[in-house]
This record gives sequence, structure tokens and C-alpha cells, in this order.
Amino acid sequence: MPHIALPEGLPGIRGAMAFRPATAKPLNELVEVLLCGPSTLTPAERELIATYVSTLNDCYFCQTIHGAIAAAHLGGNEDLVKRVKSDFQHADISEKLKSLLVIAAKVQSGGKNVTSGDVDFARSLGATDIEIHDTVLIAAAFCMYNRYVDGLGTTQPRDEADYRERGKIVAREGYVSVSKTYIPAETSAG
Amino acid sequence: MPHIALPEGLPGIRGAMAFRPATAKPLNELVEVLLCGPSTLTPAERELIATYVSTLNDCYFCQTIHGAIAAAHLGGNEDLVKRVKSDFQHADISEKLKSLLVIAAKVQSGGKNVTSGDVDFARSLGATDIEIHDTVLIAAAFCMYNRYVDGLGTTQPRDEADYRERGKIVAREGYVSVSKTYIPAETSAG
Repeated sequence: MPHIALPEGLPGIRGAMAFRPATAKPLNELVEVLLCGPSTLTPAERELIATYVSTLNDCYFCQTIHGAIAAAHLGGNEDLVKRVKSDFQHADISEKLKSLLVIAAKVQSGGKNVTSGDVDFARSLGATDIEIHDTVLIAAAFCMYNRYVDGLGTTQPRDEADYRERGKIVAREGYVSVSKTYIPAETSAG
Repeated sequence: MPHIALPEGLPGIRGAMAFRPATAKPLNELVEVLLCGPSTLTPAERELIATYVSTLNDCYFCQTIHGAIAAAHLGGNEDLVKRVKSDFQHADISEKLKSLLVIAAKVQSGGKNVTSGDVDFARSLGATDIEIHDTVLIAAAFCMYNRYVDGLGTTQPRDEADYRERGKIVAREGYVSVSKTYIPAETSAG
């Protein structure tokens, strides 16, 4: 049961965003540019970073929906997503992505934990400054989204099939487009 | 020394935002609507929540600039800001704001730590659902901004006078307006 009167029938962050359209707009635009915008990291790589950080933060809704979106980008390879969540160092992903996941985990536990050694290692594997920047910001942003979703006590259904179907739609259409179906036109709030 | 090649002369989040205008836009719009937008919480109350969470996250840049902005909104009362940071339960603020700071601290340590008891208590002191929502999101958002600023190893000058002057300007003009002076026109990045 949510802590505040969120609209019914919209799980996780969707109920929170429908409740407060004024903040939903930049929240959606941020995730859109980070995970769907122009980047030399693939959408799947970025969704895997988001999924992994959400797993570290123990946010069921975010790790499940972003895991489903990642799997959709990976041709339905849910096993790879599960492996990244549980043991990414032995997953079938690039060494560069592994080095970025190390940085993401450091950000999740606290920004100061990122060392120049972590960054130099990622760079030695081909990571660019923008990729390192985006990894830090994706990890930081999911420390926000996860706390937002759990801090309001949002409803988080446990049927993975729902997330799988939703994941395919978001992977195809993006966040801003999909969110228009449930966020009312912006009004002054307060 | 920053972990990546951020533009020089722009401390804290300003260098990171100038480096990546595409993400700076929603980051600025989010803080603008949360801290300056229409709300029944005063700008000072919202800046105090941001300052307190940034203190818990040990982010020097964010706690100092948002503390300076809060003080500017409070007619220069820096002692009150310091008291909120160190011992808010005995600060000269409303009982409602104290109950919201309790919720903010729970969000900072993890969204699931917020209890219905915390929310009921805030509501008994007059907090509305939107105020509770915004408190959760401000706290969550500063868990992002703090990690972004520290995770990139941004420069964070220690001269409080600089923050005091900057705080007055931001309190007067807002985040989006001020950021236009150092964020280049948006270009495709990646």
C-alpha cells in the first residue's frame, strides 16, 4: 500500500509520475537521454548498468523492468541479464562494460568510492570520457529512481510476464513516448 | 583532479553539466521544479531538505551551495542552516519540517526505510501528500546529484565566501536561468 494517495493501476514509478506531472517531465527526459539518447554505449549496455545498480539498491520494480528492457534489446536473452545481476565478472559481456559496472557499483555505494584507478582501468579497455560520465550519471540517477519508487511505497506486482511485455514496448518506443499514455497534461501543483 | 576532462573553472556540478549539455537540461529542470517551483513548502524549507541530505551523503559542494541558497532565502541566517545540518531536532524550524527531514534521512539510507508511521506522523503535523511526495523526491534526487558530483571527482573549492555569493544569485534567479551562463547550446553527444 503506497504511503500517499497514488493513482491505482499504475505500478512502481508510473503511479508516482502520474501523481506529479511537473516532476515526471524532467524525470522522464533524464532517463530518455541517458538510456535511449545518442551514445557509443548500446541501449542494452546502458540498461544493464541501470538494472545492476537497481539490483544493488534492492529495488524490485526497477531491476525487473530495466532487466526486461535490457533483455528486449538483447533479443530476449534473459539469462545474460540474470548473470549480470548476480555475477557480472563472469557474464558474457565486454571487459569494458565490466569495468564500467565496477564504477557503477562504486557510485551506488557513494560517489567518493570511485578511484582514479577504476577510471584508468576502464579507459585502458577503451572507455571514453563521455562513457565514463554517463556510467556515473546512470548509476547516480538510479540511486534516485530506486529511492523514489521504494520511498513512496509504490505497488510492485510480482508477475514477471507483465514486466516482460512492458519491457518490449519501452525498448521499442522509449520512455518519454510511453509515459504520455499515463501522465496527465502538466498543471501547476503545490 | 576530476576523473574525466571537465571544463576548468566550473566547480562541482557546473563542470559536469557544461561537459554534457544533453543531460544537464533535465538535471536543471528537475532541481528547478523541486526547489523553486510552485509548492506549499517554502524555497527555504526545500533547500534545507536538500542541504541536509547532501550533508548525510558527505558531499561538500552540494551541502555548501544549497546551505548558502537556504541561508539566502532565510535572510542570511547561516546559524539556522548549520543547526539543521548538525541537530535539526533542536533547530528553530517547524515540527512539520522536522518530520519531513526524518523521512528525507530514511530515503537517503534507502527508500524501504520509510515507514507508514513516519508518513502518518508528518501528516498529523499538517504535511500534505504532495509535500511528502516532494520530500521523498528531493531526498532521492540529492542522492543522485551528490553521487554525480563526487563520482566524477569534480573540483570543490573550500572558500565559503564564493558559495555565499553564488547562493544569493541562485536564490534570486533560479537554477535554469543561472545555468544558461555556462552550459553550451545542446548538441548531439555520444
